[in-house]
Amino acid sequence: MRLRNKKWAAAWLNEHDELVITQDRATGLQGNWQSLFENNAPLHVEIGTGKGQFIIGMAKKYPNINFIGMELQESAVAVAARKADEDEQSLPNLRFIYGDGAGVETYFSKGEVAKIYLNFSDPWPKTRHESRRLTYKTFLEGYRAVLPTGGEIAFKTDNRGLFEYSLYSFAEFGVKFNPNGISLNLHEDSDKMLDNVETEYEQKFSGAGFPIYQFIGHF
Amino acid sequence: MRLRNKKWAAAWLNEHDELVITQDRATGLQGNWQSLFENNAPLHVEIGTGKGQFIIGMAKKYPNINFIGMELQESAVAVAARKADEDEQSLPNLRFIYGDGAGVETYFSKGEVAKIYLNFSDPWPKTRHESRRLTYKTFLEGYRAVLPTGGEIAFKTDNRGLFEYSLYSFAEFGVKFNPNGISLNLHEDSDKMLDNVETEYEQKFSGAGFPIYQFIGHF
Repeated sequence: MRLRNKKWAAAWLNEHDELVITQDRATGLQGNWQSLFENNAPLHVEIGTGKGQFIIGMAKKYPNINFIGMELQESAVAVAARKADEDEQSLPNLRFIYGDGAGVETYFSKGEVAKIYLNFSDPWPKTRHESRRLTYKTFLEGYRAVLPTGGEIAFKTDNRGLFEYSLYSFAEFGVKFNPNGISLNLHEDSDKMLDNVETEYEQKFSGAGFPIYQFIGHF
Repeated sequence: MRLRNKKWAAAWLNEHDELVITQDRATGLQGNWQSLFENNAPLHVEIGTGKGQFIIGMAKKYPNINFIGMELQESAVAVAARKADEDEQSLPNLRFIYGDGAGVETYFSKGEVAKIYLNFSDPWPKTRHESRRLTYKTFLEGYRAVLPTGGEIAFKTDNRGLFEYSLYSFAEFGVKFNPNGISLNLHEDSDKMLDNVETEYEQKFSGAGFPIYQFIGHF
């Protein structure tokens, strides 16, 4: 979903370049992301962080993990980062990248990222747009290029077609399926919900009675 | 689901040993199943055929495929076979095996079966019963032993837990996922429904509004 353009976004991002890293600067940080954080904790990255509810919630819930929310839309990343900045809780374990998920292997080196989250990604339902889906093989190549062996991908969506496609794409690419890593109705799996942090979409669609699908796998 | 015991079943099966093959005789037919049929057509096998609605419907819909319904419960296989026998349409392309799916590789030789169907199999939800699920690795080994390279497995269920588990088990075992082979709500996929033949369970659960899950993959 494209946010309405926020006129303040560009200037705000400019003024908060410690919190939101531009694509160019991200490339320069390859292999050196831990220098941005206080502690040498595992680095988890969300591709397509939207308005940031998930990654901010995760940063609060897991202070001993470092998080990066990556987002292509200027207005969305500005909304997300401002929300983090204005939060009453200081979040030294959270940064954003204003950049394209397709470039993930240019921002990070192999093994630098411990886990990747994909949440409610654009479904691109038309077959001719398959290559834009964040679970298409070229994106999976990017994730593999930055995750260590055993590094995880966690994917949630309400979109049935995207989830069906993604299961195929994960299997075809050789992403390993975690035992007990699939839920076809996450909000009815009380054990899995203990670890769950909701996104904006998830709250909306789950609240409306739609099932949320989850896949957790690894390389 | 266990059927109530049918007192007539044993005698009826005895009298219809051309239609329903016992486990012992099935073993003797290994590599030679085409001798039972009029034409040398591809052989499709359903493991756990229950009361037979699916396999009878398939045999009617696809006269140029030979079908075998395999069923472990005496009363169920008798009900299924009697239904086929009493059908107004003669079904020379259908036989049953009164036997255990765990023995599939003792009944058929490699490549003798072109496709295997698993429909609404017992979910065995307890972890300690995992090895009884028809999608557990030892069963997959049996299917692989009788299917050719490219031979398909088609699996349907209304049971979310069994389907989640089975996706994991298929991927882990190396069953290839067919492109567009997964549906998480089969009865809403109009293109896939063109090929669909319903089982008794499917009619009941889909009618009650539950989603039917489908997986089609291959070796």
